[in-house]
Amino acid sequence: MTVRDEERILEIIETARSKKPKFREDRINMAHGAGGKSTQGLIEGVFLPAFASPTLETLGDAGAFAVDGVDLALTTDSFVVRPLCFPGGSIGDLAVNGTVNDLAVAGARPVALSLSLVLEEGLPADDLRAEVDAIARAAEAAEVKIIAGDTKVVERGHADGMYVCTAGVGRRDARAQLSPTGLRPGDRVLLSGTIGEHGTAIMLARGEFDLDADIVSDTRALWPAVDALLDAGGVRALRDATRGGVASVLNELARGVGMLVREAAVPVKPAVAGACELLGIDPLYVANEGKLVALVAPECADAALDALKRFDPDAAEIGEVRAEPPGMVLVETAFGGRRVMDELVGDPLPRIC
Amino acid sequence: MTVRDEERILEIIETARSKKPKFREDRINMAHGAGGKSTQGLIEGVFLPAFASPTLETLGDAGAFAVDGVDLALTTDSFVVRPLCFPGGSIGDLAVNGTVNDLAVAGARPVALSLSLVLEEGLPADDLRAEVDAIARAAEAAEVKIIAGDTKVVERGHADGMYVCTAGVGRRDARAQLSPTGLRPGDRVLLSGTIGEHGTAIMLARGEFDLDADIVSDTRALWPAVDALLDAGGVRALRDATRGGVASVLNELARGVGMLVREAAVPVKPAVAGACELLGIDPLYVANEGKLVALVAPECADAALDALKRFDPDAAEIGEVRAEPPGMVLVETAFGGRRVMDELVGDPLPRIC
Repeated sequence: MTVRDEERILEIIETARSKKPKFREDRINMAHGAGGKSTQGLIEGVFLPAFASPTLETLGDAGAFAVDGVDLALTTDSFVVRPLCFPGGSIGDLAVNGTVNDLAVAGARPVALSLSLVLEEGLPADDLRAEVDAIARAAEAAEVKIIAGDTKVVERGHADGMYVCTAGVGRRDARAQLSPTGLRPGDRVLLSGTIGEHGTAIMLARGEFDLDADIVSDTRALWPAVDALLDAGGVRALRDATRGGVASVLNELARGVGMLVREAAVPVKPAVAGACELLGIDPLYVANEGKLVALVAPECADAALDALKRFDPDAAEIGEVRAEPPGMVLVETAFGGRRVMDELVGDPLPRIC
Repeated sequence: MTVRDEERILEIIETARSKKPKFREDRINMAHGAGGKSTQGLIEGVFLPAFASPTLETLGDAGAFAVDGVDLALTTDSFVVRPLCFPGGSIGDLAVNGTVNDLAVAGARPVALSLSLVLEEGLPADDLRAEVDAIARAAEAAEVKIIAGDTKVVERGHADGMYVCTAGVGRRDARAQLSPTGLRPGDRVLLSGTIGEHGTAIMLARGEFDLDADIVSDTRALWPAVDALLDAGGVRALRDATRGGVASVLNELARGVGMLVREAAVPVKPAVAGACELLGIDPLYVANEGKLVALVAPECADAALDALKRFDPDAAEIGEVRAEPPGMVLVETAFGGRRVMDELVGDPLPRIC
């Protein structure tokens, strides 16, 4: 591909990208839940117009609000993962960690969680007990209390055993002056560890692929890492790279600025890289459940990376913010070429959380 | 039945009741989601031991917590009602009103809601839009903002179109010195309006019974009524009488005290009374989605009833707290007899919210 070709392609994509994703489908499909372009279309086409509020429009991982001068954050997630248990965790771990992590990357210390269960008639009581225990252990590890709950039961054949919905309240930290729209050329892109473990672990656990690899989910709570990052200073934006992976997170953040990611700098475990190659999936699009992306001012990048490395030696600087091309994420391949890393289209790995 | 017979029966029931409900089943059944005895067993046998915390153990409709000295409440509910739309409302209305009402009866002014959707692949986009609109309208009516959200999609055949999970944060009101364990003989039992509309409206909407009656759900937000009640003073406990109805709420509150309900004083619309008679269900066990039960000190009862009547002229005083028999709710029938109004057993009206 010549430079001219590349420029023309970038131009076409840019024109397409400048139009906000729209929701034009007649019916909901699996991609609407995948965290990529379709999810974005649903949010911007249906939810934002209905629930218009300044905080919802920042599209962060949690909504900001204040009560009597105290800055709080609220977030929620439903978990519909199949199977309920997988190497490295279960739906209960995910439900706690996913929600406390949404608070953490919104710069809020998790304080309290609620837990709402939709159980399938016939669910073995021991399966329920195991998940309740997993939830209690994960909450203890994340130093957060579960203070409200609800249980519904639906008839056999619905809800795949159980769906779990958690909501969380956090105390926004005064050190967190996050402004995802205030990214500047030169800001660094940091990643808190190796990517792709959760999504590939789930796919292998389903046994749909004749593939045996030693991959475990990375589900864990991120507040301690965020706490250390905020001490290092200069943090402009944080995202946990769940559904849609690092690629979707960076595309979400690349509004008005460009991003360059150095593929060779992205930490991926060999087993994950191998599984992704066989499955035909780019690990940058695969879900993580204990990894964050931090956009940090250049002068604070070293201290921030040191802070992340204390929690995970695989933390790395993987790229930077560029002025051009605005709205796009480019990947510099190991061979020196460049390609566009667009938003996730479709759903290659359904129901991984 | 002689007085001796009645005494003996009461004794037997009392012994059974003094043992806490336990969770002994091998598998989850529909009754575990019905809000009665089985739900209580699940809560006390599985959830409380795992998530032990003083606030969860009060078993109120919301969990209390504080951040930097500000008193807050958190609550959550999943909604799995069938059908999604019914006379008087839809799953979207329920999701908002159910959650703001749980906050209201915990003495907390609703502040912010989160919304998590589990959508079924193939759901018509217009059905989603209609529910999103219903949610937005109900939130506006309840003066509460939806500030966080999540969407998951599950394969066709699961989730019956959609399940909706809402969580809510409220500001606990200093006037609300609720102490459900501090009920005293002589306290009055007030009801904010006619009962049984929601549950019977749902049953009729399903068309399973060859019955045509003009009954609409009572789904509405209760904070304005609670606000007025708190001004009247003397409120010891509040509950919204959803799953399991007024009977379950009163059984929950009758710990260490007895209650007497005068059946003739309980307001029931003729159409609801007729439908319940044909369905063989006592309206006191039928779900409401916009009615509360208030336990009020006798000296404040008249002012409290006046406050409730300003919102609904059908509000009524239906009974009182008695010293005997502790832990039991007795109903004085229109004919002057008495019967025990035990907790709901089984699930006569599944998936009504």
